[in-house]
Amino acid sequence: MRIALLGGTGDIGEGLALRWAFHTNHEVVVGSRDPERARTKAEEYETELSSRGVDAKVNGFANEMAADRARVVVVAVPAYHVSDTIETVADKLDEGDVLVSPATGMKRDDEGFHYHRPNAGSVTQLAVDAAPAGVDVVGAFHNLAAGRLADLDAELGIDTLLVGDDRDAKETVRLLAEDIDGLRALDAGSVANAPEVEALTPLLVNVGRNNEGMHDLGVRFR
Amino acid sequence: MRIALLGGTGDIGEGLALRWAFHTNHEVVVGSRDPERARTKAEEYETELSSRGVDAKVNGFANEMAADRARVVVVAVPAYHVSDTIETVADKLDEGDVLVSPATGMKRDDEGFHYHRPNAGSVTQLAVDAAPAGVDVVGAFHNLAAGRLADLDAELGIDTLLVGDDRDAKETVRLLAEDIDGLRALDAGSVANAPEVEALTPLLVNVGRNNEGMHDLGVRFR
Repeated sequence: MRIALLGGTGDIGEGLALRWAFHTNHEVVVGSRDPERARTKAEEYETELSSRGVDAKVNGFANEMAADRARVVVVAVPAYHVSDTIETVADKLDEGDVLVSPATGMKRDDEGFHYHRPNAGSVTQLAVDAAPAGVDVVGAFHNLAAGRLADLDAELGIDTLLVGDDRDAKETVRLLAEDIDGLRALDAGSVANAPEVEALTPLLVNVGRNNEGMHDLGVRFR
Repeated sequence: MRIALLGGTGDIGEGLALRWAFHTNHEVVVGSRDPERARTKAEEYETELSSRGVDAKVNGFANEMAADRARVVVVAVPAYHVSDTIETVADKLDEGDVLVSPATGMKRDDEGFHYHRPNAGSVTQLAVDAAPAGVDVVGAFHNLAAGRLADLDAELGIDTLLVGDDRDAKETVRLLAEDIDGLRALDAGSVANAPEVEALTPLLVNVGRNNEGMHDLGVRFR
């Protein structure tokens, strides 16, 4: 399957691009507002994969072109760019395409990180509100530490949580998630259940900051 | 150490009472608004422990009397009773006593469970606001499934998260938590970080509801 990573030059985009290109035969397309930067990062990913004996083709394009070419489009941008990024690519999306939203809203102060819930209810809901008709949104990959994901030597052994209102779209993303070695996908319910999923991200950061020897944390439900 | 469980006849209170009485030498005191009910439940716990070869004395009292006798007081009541329960026992608490708050606010609708954040910021903050001067509050044990905790045959292998503003109080609770076999205590920061900890509880319920074969879930950070 062809997967576009909008904002695929950023840290969570890099991790997902490398993991899918390394562990699967899916075709990964890197998108960026700056196509030159997308091409440069795509080449970097190819070099990293090649150094590990994987000869995968990773292309880089402007976000619009990346979205145009993919069946699944991951909006791997900060929370405050989710809406405008989706609007930019909206007319390149076809009915049946799936948007994946991994972003969460966080605020930081002296006490640590806090979930910053958008007025819409969740960042995933922001994506739903911006998505064109016929394109379903699935929230996923919120709780993965970017550095650990991008380090192909790092074992995962953790879970990612899915929220979405369309069963087929959720199943598509579940399969893509479980294609990554060491990642288990669990269903956390509908888009209305996204806030609790998104709030887990600042919690993971806080636990990492407050416990010696713990960093780049994920969670396992058991 | 003497530990009072206010609302110790309820489900999370039962689990903590049994685990501490079973795994440790701490003296567990069960509190309830109704002292007769506290005595009855305390006897039930003794019977359960005795059937497993543990001869532990568990006493039951009215909440005020239970709090009077303990160094650590767990407020194991629903979120909407946290403030009034603490007010009821306030003049029985001594400086240096520690209040432990395991409650979380949840709302349920057709989509599942949602974190219901109190205006104070968190349920743990409600406990802080109600606590008398000199008594520190630690949020802990929010994310433990009551049924699993109360089933002494059930293995834990999960984490509990601590939030609190006083380092010594947090350390006291950390040690008590880790006295329970299979429970690891992690520091999630200050009371300001409680909302993300409390929001994990509805998430655990939602994941349990949406994934076959998963129930009474806990989490392991890794």
